[in-house]
Amino acid sequence: MPSTTWNRHHILSLTDFSPVEYDAVLQTAASFQEVLSRRTKKVPTLQGQVVANLFFEPSTRTRSSFEIAAKRLSADTLNFAAATSSMTKGETILDTAKTYLAMGTDIMVIRHREAGVPNAIAQEMDRLGVKVSVLNAGDGQHEHPSQGLLDLFTICTLIDPTNPRIELLKGKKIAIVGDILHSRVARSNISSLTASGAEVHLAAPPTLLPKLFAEYFAEETTQESISNRQLFLHWQLEPALRDADFVMTLRLQKERMTAHLLPSLREYHQLFGITREKLRLCKPNVKVLHPGPVNRGVEISSDLMDDPEFSLIQAQVTSGVAVRMALLYLIGSGKV
Amino acid sequence: MPSTTWNRHHILSLTDFSPVEYDAVLQTAASFQEVLSRRTKKVPTLQGQVVANLFFEPSTRTRSSFEIAAKRLSADTLNFAAATSSMTKGETILDTAKTYLAMGTDIMVIRHREAGVPNAIAQEMDRLGVKVSVLNAGDGQHEHPSQGLLDLFTICTLIDPTNPRIELLKGKKIAIVGDILHSRVARSNISSLTASGAEVHLAAPPTLLPKLFAEYFAEETTQESISNRQLFLHWQLEPALRDADFVMTLRLQKERMTAHLLPSLREYHQLFGITREKLRLCKPNVKVLHPGPVNRGVEISSDLMDDPEFSLIQAQVTSGVAVRMALLYLIGSGKV
Amino acid sequence: MPSTTWNRHHILSLTDFSPVEYDAVLQTAASFQEVLSRRTKKVPTLQGQVVANLFFEPSTRTRSSFEIAAKRLSADTLNFAAATSSMTKGETILDTAKTYLAMGTDIMVIRHREAGVPNAIAQEMDRLGVKVSVLNAGDGQHEHPSQGLLDLFTICTLIDPTNPRIELLKGKKIAIVGDILHSRVARSNISSLTASGAEVHLAAPPTLLPKLFAEYFAEETTQESISNRQLFLHWQLEPALRDADFVMTLRLQKERMTAHLLPSLREYHQLFGITREKLRLCKPNVKVLHPGPVNRGVEISSDLMDDPEFSLIQAQVTSGVAVRMALLYLIGSGKV
Repeated sequence: MPSTTWNRHHILSLTDFSPVEYDAVLQTAASFQEVLSRRTKKVPTLQGQVVANLFFEPSTRTRSSFEIAAKRLSADTLNFAAATSSMTKGETILDTAKTYLAMGTDIMVIRHREAGVPNAIAQEMDRLGVKVSVLNAGDGQHEHPSQGLLDLFTICTLIDPTNPRIELLKGKKIAIVGDILHSRVARSNISSLTASGAEVHLAAPPTLLPKLFAEYFAEETTQESISNRQLFLHWQLEPALRDADFVMTLRLQKERMTAHLLPSLREYHQLFGITREKLRLCKPNVKVLHPGPVNRGVEISSDLMDDPEFSLIQAQVTSGVAVRMALLYLIGSGKV
Repeated sequence: MPSTTWNRHHILSLTDFSPVEYDAVLQTAASFQEVLSRRTKKVPTLQGQVVANLFFEPSTRTRSSFEIAAKRLSADTLNFAAATSSMTKGETILDTAKTYLAMGTDIMVIRHREAGVPNAIAQEMDRLGVKVSVLNAGDGQHEHPSQGLLDLFTICTLIDPTNPRIELLKGKKIAIVGDILHSRVARSNISSLTASGAEVHLAAPPTLLPKLFAEYFAEETTQESISNRQLFLHWQLEPALRDADFVMTLRLQKERMTAHLLPSLREYHQLFGITREKLRLCKPNVKVLHPGPVNRGVEISSDLMDDPEFSLIQAQVTSGVAVRMALLYLIGSGKV
Repeated sequence: MPSTTWNRHHILSLTDFSPVEYDAVLQTAASFQEVLSRRTKKVPTLQGQVVANLFFEPSTRTRSSFEIAAKRLSADTLNFAAATSSMTKGETILDTAKTYLAMGTDIMVIRHREAGVPNAIAQEMDRLGVKVSVLNAGDGQHEHPSQGLLDLFTICTLIDPTNPRIELLKGKKIAIVGDILHSRVARSNISSLTASGAEVHLAAPPTLLPKLFAEYFAEETTQESISNRQLFLHWQLEPALRDADFVMTLRLQKERMTAHLLPSLREYHQLFGITREKLRLCKPNVKVLHPGPVNRGVEISSDLMDDPEFSLIQAQVTSGVAVRMALLYLIGSGKV
């Protein structure tokens, strides 16, 4: 492992991550990526520690990724799924977390459909003066920091596999396309990508773009000084894609349809779905990312998703394990 | 580990536990409590053994506690949850247990909503002449021995952390408050506490006190010789709390409301909920226990639950892991 | 472990298993059966490898058997259950499998209610040029190869515990009784038993016998040369049982009743249920098998199921762990 100075105890949000912290995660994940290619893929780093996956919202993908990361570090894992839990018995979330604390949990990986739950649990742990770390695995429409970091790692290792670092993204144009409004993935990515010096272009139908970012509308900001601008909003896909180095598509929750935020999946795909043809607007060696699970033929055309020349979707999943090992290592290895 | 002679093969009930057995559990749990404070929290005691958690009734808290205890002892764990099981396919419970036996399970930890299921499985294992041990993790309204033992351990280690033993409770007054009628926790605690020489006072509304114990009514027993009496029943909270050293509140199943056994949660809290004010009746350094999960503001006021001066609730959860390690160790280490 | 040459990468079906392959599985399983009787039941063979149990159809028994087999080989296990998965989010099955591939899974154990799903996943893995192995843990009404192999192992080790091999079954008469039509267990067993040289007699009510096998009807084939015939069909139980060495009963899905394929469970038991009395038709030392879970009093009388003189049902479950260890070992040990 690289000798990094790491002082962050919980990982809740990327909004206040420093360049040094981003690089520490990237470098540590690169070391673990190398471990994963060895015959013996396990390291004894977290032996005897307990990582509890407290998933108040169901998720197979993220939960399995954290579970495998923890096991590769030789930690013991506990899985908690809300459906089979005491939650139905009226216990508060903080009480559930404190129960896992009292059982000897060292790291809590928390997913919840309400924004702010991981923060609330982390605050409670700090208030109690205990050493437990909290890792936000997705909270409502707020943040999904490990996803933001694995996307960053995926892009940076593509550019320089041996030495990924955020300065590699300086001046790159990255489009984020889709349901920005409801996406915790988008929020975390906007933080990491703008911090890395990339130019981030958001594209979505008006109903799926957050009003919060209205000031960033590309079309309406000619009057102000935009020398340092890194974030741009578009109601159309084309200006976001033009000369893009990377295109991140977001998962479309089909529930949005019933909420009348979208006309039809077909029309959405026609306007905002990523296809081979639309990619011609981008740089020639453009790559496409998606946090998964993918609705094939909606956010991205099915053939493009499977094309290794363009798709980084599988690489993202693999990066996910290495990045989550890095995060567990960085917040966990100083324990006890 | 202390060198104890342990002959009990299954742990099904506390009614016939001997003082020597209680002390063996307390001493062994104390050793494991010490292990849990070390950097390497695992011991290789049960390496290669399989602990199957057969939870026919859902439970996160107890299942996680047993799972973490088994993993700390280096056992492999199997989790069975009724919801996803063959039970829906019409298999009998004994057949399910025998399937896990045939797969090589060494210890079965069993929870079931029917009283007597762990006993029936243990009898079947004995009849088959196999070495598998059965541990009752709560059966209907019958017993929850590991909860009774962890409560005992929590109290005894508070009095003497280095040498917990049941004689420490001689002459202590302990109030058990709430839904005694339906509580397997109460049943197990009554056994362990009376065995330890404590004076146990049960307090509940008439509808939640078992008729079985009617002879123990404090108010109606003046005529008989009660020199050796240790168990007292009360329809009011006050006489139970007066000069109590420990107060155990029980979880109130909200289903009881619909069964017309209770007027309202609010009235219940007013009459039997433990509050800072009501604790003034007790000894000055009184402590409060609750098996969890807690309905805050019902069985106990929210602020009192979080007050480390009075509440042992977190300590109980921590004791739970040490005590369950002790139980798995005592019944499991002689195997093979 | 015996030094076998094993070239099969996936285990999807028994239809094309060679005698050499059957014997390799039997010999390897016998070695692991011996390991399981030792004090230390674990071997480090698959340390650092990840076995993902992707159960798109719920199953406790088979999932636990594979999980315990993987853990005995020191592999890390991931459990995926469709109910709590992204499947509800619209992801395709192949995409789910590729996600687990990208996370670093080495062996995928797959159960699905649709026939052909494990094959489709295996083909995709091969197309991608990756080393992941796929093990069919039951697909629709197609195959359940590990069950077929464990039944074979159970029978062969009964005949020669130290050296199980398929030639031991040459000339043995084996009856398979029950819902042949819908049974993947029957399909896999027909392959393995006929390959071993046994004479296989299927008996079922007409509605539960596959038309596919009509040519094998015992009663209608007197005219043709049947010197090499090994497979016989019967609409009655008696001719199948007469002088049988082994009787395999199949689980009766109670749903068949509602589909009007059966008159009543009682009548089914009267006609095709295995009882002590009906066994008098068989060889004196006949043994009965059932893949479980058993409907007592339907496929087999309750007392017979528990009689160790006749019932191999517990032995099958134990064999299951040894055989699954063998399969994971054979397809997994050459990895990395």
